[in-house]
Amino acid sequence: MTQNAKFQTGEEVRLAARRGELTGQTSGMAPGYAQANLAILPREFAEDFEQFCRLNAQACPLLDVTPPGSALPKNAAPDADLRTDLPKYRVWRDGVLIDEPTDVLDFWHEDFVSFLIGCSFTFEAALLKAGIPVRHIAQGLNVPMYRTNIPCTPSGIFHGPLVVSMRPLNPADAISAVQITSKYPTMHGAPIHLGFPDKIGITDINKPDFGDAVEIGDGEFPVFWACGVTPQSVIMAAKPPLAITHSPGCMFLTDIRDDDLATD
Amino acid sequence: MTQNAKFQTGEEVRLAARRGELTGQTSGMAPGYAQANLAILPREFAEDFEQFCRLNAQACPLLDVTPPGSALPKNAAPDADLRTDLPKYRVWRDGVLIDEPTDVLDFWHEDFVSFLIGCSFTFEAALLKAGIPVRHIAQGLNVPMYRTNIPCTPSGIFHGPLVVSMRPLNPADAISAVQITSKYPTMHGAPIHLGFPDKIGITDINKPDFGDAVEIGDGEFPVFWACGVTPQSVIMAAKPPLAITHSPGCMFLTDIRDDDLATD
Repeated sequence: MTQNAKFQTGEEVRLAARRGELTGQTSGMAPGYAQANLAILPREFAEDFEQFCRLNAQACPLLDVTPPGSALPKNAAPDADLRTDLPKYRVWRDGVLIDEPTDVLDFWHEDFVSFLIGCSFTFEAALLKAGIPVRHIAQGLNVPMYRTNIPCTPSGIFHGPLVVSMRPLNPADAISAVQITSKYPTMHGAPIHLGFPDKIGITDINKPDFGDAVEIGDGEFPVFWACGVTPQSVIMAAKPPLAITHSPGCMFLTDIRDDDLATD
Repeated sequence: MTQNAKFQTGEEVRLAARRGELTGQTSGMAPGYAQANLAILPREFAEDFEQFCRLNAQACPLLDVTPPGSALPKNAAPDADLRTDLPKYRVWRDGVLIDEPTDVLDFWHEDFVSFLIGCSFTFEAALLKAGIPVRHIAQGLNVPMYRTNIPCTPSGIFHGPLVVSMRPLNPADAISAVQITSKYPTMHGAPIHLGFPDKIGITDINKPDFGDAVEIGDGEFPVFWACGVTPQSVIMAAKPPLAITHSPGCMFLTDIRDDDLATD
């Protein structure tokens, strides 16, 4: 039994993470449940960051925002605790990574606002269901992610380039993947690019900025989607005094069903 | 004023063709009106051919079929005459092209059955409307078309390879074009391939089997759609004693609005 098949629901993944039994990436887990990127910021930056997400909705589709101090995402998973329920976190001080813990109880502040942002792992379930192989899942790797030369629309201190995730696909599957992911506008939607990495500022496809490199076969394209790691990259650039994100690939599992996010 | 802008409706194009004033290709004409491929066959082959169209619906989406002897397509254009209203025809005897007249009054038989088949020119209007440039229209050329190594599903004497039309697009436009053309399932729908012509049996992209070659720019893909010239290629292979088709690119203009063929 693979690690992926062990967890059938979002709650099972969260509880395993809470117990410290799951500390790695979540791609392919709890099929049918929406996965989310996490960003936690001090209250004073929350308004600008929320605006940043709205201005860059393809990269940062907001699923839930908590009131200050609350670690409970009411819309996404009313039984969850955002301080413990992700496999791995990243803690940033002045834009510098200072820790990568498996919970953030020790870092918690009463003025933290938490943002849950849609994740491409969600539409991967739809791709697999349609018979489209997803390379990094097949290889048990984290999805490769890259900083591009495409600037996000800035808001307050938040600015920086769009980050993308990449999946290699043959042309027929790439066409189907455009059709399928277009139905998930709150999960990054359609690809933003395919085929020419250098045109979006990616100089070496074999050296992702986040995640793992995967092989691109003969007759395949690299296909790029806007990625929820974008806010993490932006937080690194904005250098708020303190911020917490998920560790790339180690997502928050919601109770939201993928099907409920599809437009038809 | 360009030739394309001269005609605002399907009827205007048909009347110009009927009068012999229009004898060339129709791409981009009467924007918003569906264009159609024509195939005319003796009654004895009609059933097998209709079945061929249904089995290969992406290449041969049927818009209308006339009763034997009738040149009037009731569904597509109730005032039309299929013997005179296309700019140019091709007449085939035993699979060999014997004439390319501007009307087929002299070839008409009382047992002819006419088939109107959806055409990619229809979705080109939707592409242009979305700001996606269509190279062959911009250059005033006929769309390039290629025989592939993809076999159609045979029916009776009708068999042969899928023919595709090609438009060069940059990645962002290719992604949008997949989204847009997916909404026109009766107009060939989404592309069947992009990027690797050799994978579908096209050895020289600069030498189309029908139509004109167009330039593929730096950072562009060739994007391929199933093409309504497929039945013409199939008729050449099946060698019925007599058959009539449109001349490639010289389509029948219907009264059907493109919008009425979109799925949403």
